[in-house]
Amino acid sequence: MEHVAAFVDAHLDRFIEELSAWVRIPSVSSDPARAGEVERSAQHLAAELRSLHATRVEIWPTAGHPAVFAEWLGAPGKPTLLVYGHHDVQPVDPLGEWTSPPFEPEVRAGRLWGRGTADDKGQVHIHSKAVETLFASAGRLPINLKMLIEGEEEVGSQHLGDLLRERATDLAADVVCISDTSMFGPNVPSLCVGLRGLTYLEVTVDGPAADLHSGMFGGAIGNPINALTTMLGALHDPAGRVRVPGFYDAVVPLSDAERRSIAALPFDEGAWLRSTGAPAPVGESGYTTLERLWARPTLDCCGIWGGFQGDGAKTVLPARAGAKVSCRLVPNQEPDDIARKVAATLERLAPSAVRVRVAVLHGGSPYLAPTEHPVYALAQRALHRAFGKPPVFMREGGSIPFVRTISDATGKPCLLMGFGQPDENAHAPNEWLDLENYRRGILSAAYLYEEIADMVISPGDAPARSG
Amino acid sequence: MEHVAAFVDAHLDRFIEELSAWVRIPSVSSDPARAGEVERSAQHLAAELRSLHATRVEIWPTAGHPAVFAEWLGAPGKPTLLVYGHHDVQPVDPLGEWTSPPFEPEVRAGRLWGRGTADDKGQVHIHSKAVETLFASAGRLPINLKMLIEGEEEVGSQHLGDLLRERATDLAADVVCISDTSMFGPNVPSLCVGLRGLTYLEVTVDGPAADLHSGMFGGAIGNPINALTTMLGALHDPAGRVRVPGFYDAVVPLSDAERRSIAALPFDEGAWLRSTGAPAPVGESGYTTLERLWARPTLDCCGIWGGFQGDGAKTVLPARAGAKVSCRLVPNQEPDDIARKVAATLERLAPSAVRVRVAVLHGGSPYLAPTEHPVYALAQRALHRAFGKPPVFMREGGSIPFVRTISDATGKPCLLMGFGQPDENAHAPNEWLDLENYRRGILSAAYLYEEIADMVISPGDAPARSG
Repeated sequence: MEHVAAFVDAHLDRFIEELSAWVRIPSVSSDPARAGEVERSAQHLAAELRSLHATRVEIWPTAGHPAVFAEWLGAPGKPTLLVYGHHDVQPVDPLGEWTSPPFEPEVRAGRLWGRGTADDKGQVHIHSKAVETLFASAGRLPINLKMLIEGEEEVGSQHLGDLLRERATDLAADVVCISDTSMFGPNVPSLCVGLRGLTYLEVTVDGPAADLHSGMFGGAIGNPINALTTMLGALHDPAGRVRVPGFYDAVVPLSDAERRSIAALPFDEGAWLRSTGAPAPVGESGYTTLERLWARPTLDCCGIWGGFQGDGAKTVLPARAGAKVSCRLVPNQEPDDIARKVAATLERLAPSAVRVRVAVLHGGSPYLAPTEHPVYALAQRALHRAFGKPPVFMREGGSIPFVRTISDATGKPCLLMGFGQPDENAHAPNEWLDLENYRRGILSAAYLYEEIADMVISPGDAPARSG
Repeated sequence: MEHVAAFVDAHLDRFIEELSAWVRIPSVSSDPARAGEVERSAQHLAAELRSLHATRVEIWPTAGHPAVFAEWLGAPGKPTLLVYGHHDVQPVDPLGEWTSPPFEPEVRAGRLWGRGTADDKGQVHIHSKAVETLFASAGRLPINLKMLIEGEEEVGSQHLGDLLRERATDLAADVVCISDTSMFGPNVPSLCVGLRGLTYLEVTVDGPAADLHSGMFGGAIGNPINALTTMLGALHDPAGRVRVPGFYDAVVPLSDAERRSIAALPFDEGAWLRSTGAPAPVGESGYTTLERLWARPTLDCCGIWGGFQGDGAKTVLPARAGAKVSCRLVPNQEPDDIARKVAATLERLAPSAVRVRVAVLHGGSPYLAPTEHPVYALAQRALHRAFGKPPVFMREGGSIPFVRTISDATGKPCLLMGFGQPDENAHAPNEWLDLENYRRGILSAAYLYEEIADMVISPGDAPARSG
């Protein structure tokens, strides 16, 4: 039996070859023409997992793309870990911007380049290679392991909720581990303990029945763009707070401990600002940039339109204007409640001379990990062993609705242990995976399985805190 | 010699045939492919005027489309009247909405339908048929008459200023008459004594260098749409006044007399509102709808754009947003001054986290007629004789920059004596001219020439009042 790290080092080139073979399958779930490739990707993964001593491997069809389920139940009395990931990938447009073709993975400068290398095939592969490594080094897994690798994450995990409900018994576990996020930065092992939620509204303002001449009617007929800008312009106060009654009612304040922990992170704000090209950082008074991004709710217009958008000067008083309004939410805000409050405020602010409609397009709840659960300390130990340094707790400003879907369905802590990087181009051309993170990721997963083997299983484990 | 009215009645069908022949020439000045048709329209008009005893008829080329000049100088010692009009027409799109083809004029229900029937060939024709009628009934014109019929009005009268400067001696006159506007309503003879001016700005707000993810960056990077709506939303106060410092400084208040005159007009506000499809009339507190439209300045957003405008929910923090902002101006506001003030206000309101650029796209000064000049009383008499009722003084909310161009260049009163109707579709499918207005228009023009024959010519005539 070889030592875990020695085995990984000895076989890393082959592991990368195997990952590359999977990446070559263009499993773009948003492209109906590639449904067969998503199916092929599932079959490919299933075959690999079957070769790794799984006690059960199945392809679970859905009304959309199939998921792969596998389990290793050879550790009676030990905790059960459910690993979640996905085998579908983002589209690749614009294709011309890729340095090497997205589905012809290539190693350059210590990175594996290709669509899905980081998001999420590479991170799923980390777990399968951890399984292989533990079997090679110990002849068995120290825990019971289940994997659910879905095929629809990039199209909104449409049938994940159904799977979690219908397969609840199959998926029963003590802890969930999701490897689909990024580390805080290079060589900063990280556990993600919070995600923002989202509510996304579309507001439409109707005035006259058709576009009117701004000279013949201007000044006596309500202008939908004027109305919309008046309404939207009133939604922030000068301190950058959202001026919607009740908006902050449910917000859980940052604890002093978490503020200290965030302040201690190796955050290069100047480099971050330069990466955006924006002239200055801004936001709600009284909070640092990371606090604003991770722990404070927002109201951002994602789009606006109305009237004449071409070159030159067309003197039109438009019939209609509209905007997309997105609020990022933090615990314990709930999307339905915030959507209602924003809609009511917009309707209250609307001048009488226009008609306002607000539609809720999308929502997702925020997530805050139950870091008092013992698995967090165990995961910290695993990452410390793999990276040679203790991991940080971080949050993400974005929303990953399936985390709450899984957390709510299982009632178990969801460990967000990711090995990507913030600039990995997960949804852009030239996606890459750092191969040193891949190597340390395999070690981290193997050590995690080892660490939690002796975790005391409490049937009363607190579900994830949520709002 | 026949009486004027009897001659018009006897020859009206032929007049309409002649006008129709001219309307058949598709002189769309905005369409480069139809430059030859604009030339043909000029030649057609020149030939007609030559047949009407003109002492001089010339086609004046410009860098764009040609104008037609004609003069009848057979009344030494009598006043000289310059008639302005245009022989180019608007485009016809969408063609499918025309009941009869735009360049195949057709008489239906007492109207002549076709592109240019009202704007402005029909109104120019009114003057040429008045000339023919006076020659037929009196053997001569009672005044000296000049006509300048340009070919670029629908593309902004780009070379009119040049013509007025270069041909100043040819165009010298005591009074200018422009027949290119509408009557207040059916059977309401009207003199237009005021026009609003215009300044048209484009404001661009730049934030990050490229679109960012609203989850990963929202709350800490300035959002150009949020900034733009905050800026634009602050430009009106709750009473509907424009909140730009100095905006109203130069505004000449309505006199009590003009307010009474406006209030006495046969304005059906309910019908007007229904024609717009808007739910309610609105505007600056303390003014009636007509006062708001004619005598109060405005600030209207004519267009706005930024971020994601498609279906669904894209969570983008956009790199840029922009808007078109049009201010209608009243005497004595000047476009350059107002543009500067609006731009300065937008820049002052801009958050520090975005960059704002304001471009001035277009401007035109407001016009207020010198109604104390004796020609206004004479024109009222002429219209009274033609329509059997005294005309009203009205204004228009729109801007006709060439009126100020002519007024400023000549320093003479510009009589705006129009025979169109507000709903004549001048710039839309199914343009029409009321043939009874056409008939009374010919009488009005003939009577106007008669009325001003004995007007005392004062070399010190006040130029048009202007701001």
